[in-house]
Amino acid sequence: MDLLRQRILKEGIVLDGNILKVDSFINHQIDPVLAYEIGLEFYKRFSDLKIDKVLTIETSGIAFALFTAYHFRVPLVFAKKHQGKNMLEDVYCSKVYSYTKEKEYTISVSCRYVYPGDRILLVDDFLANGQALLGLIDIAKQAGASVLGAGIVIEKGFQPGGKVLRNQGIRLESLVVIDSFKDRKIIFREDEK
Amino acid sequence: MDLLRQRILKEGIVLDGNILKVDSFINHQIDPVLAYEIGLEFYKRFSDLKIDKVLTIETSGIAFALFTAYHFRVPLVFAKKHQGKNMLEDVYCSKVYSYTKEKEYTISVSCRYVYPGDRILLVDDFLANGQALLGLIDIAKQAGASVLGAGIVIEKGFQPGGKVLRNQGIRLESLVVIDSFKDRKIIFREDEK
Repeated sequence: MDLLRQRILKEGIVLDGNILKVDSFINHQIDPVLAYEIGLEFYKRFSDLKIDKVLTIETSGIAFALFTAYHFRVPLVFAKKHQGKNMLEDVYCSKVYSYTKEKEYTISVSCRYVYPGDRILLVDDFLANGQALLGLIDIAKQAGASVLGAGIVIEKGFQPGGKVLRNQGIRLESLVVIDSFKDRKIIFREDEK
Repeated sequence: MDLLRQRILKEGIVLDGNILKVDSFINHQIDPVLAYEIGLEFYKRFSDLKIDKVLTIETSGIAFALFTAYHFRVPLVFAKKHQGKNMLEDVYCSKVYSYTKEKEYTISVSCRYVYPGDRILLVDDFLANGQALLGLIDIAKQAGASVLGAGIVIEKGFQPGGKVLRNQGIRLESLVVIDSFKDRKIIFREDEK
């Protein structure tokens, strides 16, 4: 997605530890017009599917998942993060390890909002190690729902998440894939489309 | 806003402790078409103002703030919540007490995303005691920005937040105001418009 790539080149900052800072338009300040276009792009790429709902995790996936759900005219459900281990009733839970924060947390979704037979599209802002998406897939499986695909705004192609998910048969659409950071320069993979 | 009131009457559940559960369309599962209409309603109600950005707090205000920002064609900034007390650099912080969770947390916004002179519209899903909005107003003040108004999806009119904010001269637009829960029935204040 060229609009997104240009914006990353213009405003993205590469930090130590292969961290890409895009908090001026993705995950602290959000450009709602870009988010609208991102949602529309996911809608187009998955428009051959009959989707019942969009599923993401709080917080920074919500904006992109919301516009995707808006274009599909289906509900958005966001999984909640808990730092404690206390389980609530009537929720599906999964444990997710964050490599960035070096800790495990629990995500949960109410049983009232994911049903057996639901056809689910996952949306998230970043894909690196894939732990967050694997947690959402686990929750969908517990609920008896099917994950039909996953839309990712920025995939770090040099980390294993994309491969792990594709190997599981998940249809993954990443709007940009970053192959490496060379001397703090962002190298994109050629568009796969 | 009649659309919202009808939805609350249809799906809202009144729990002990004056809690209104609306997580089927507001704060766990979100109806994106309703969220779009809510954003449009805030845009109309504040359309006489020149707004530079919309400010909210993660998580459940984001959807409504995002659509409001989309209609105004301005950026959305969401304050982040921290449970710890460790301050980050280059952020404005404010302490917020949550009566629901009975604990204090810190909210922060990067100094790069709120500037002196910014004209800010606050948006949040609920207004009860007003602590979250007062925290955002504090951050705007620290940054030298002006809060021109606040758009609230659901105001609990029997709690003091609305009065506190109006007494401070904040122009408050609540899409629905709930006056009381009588025998678990939701009693709305007559529309002020």
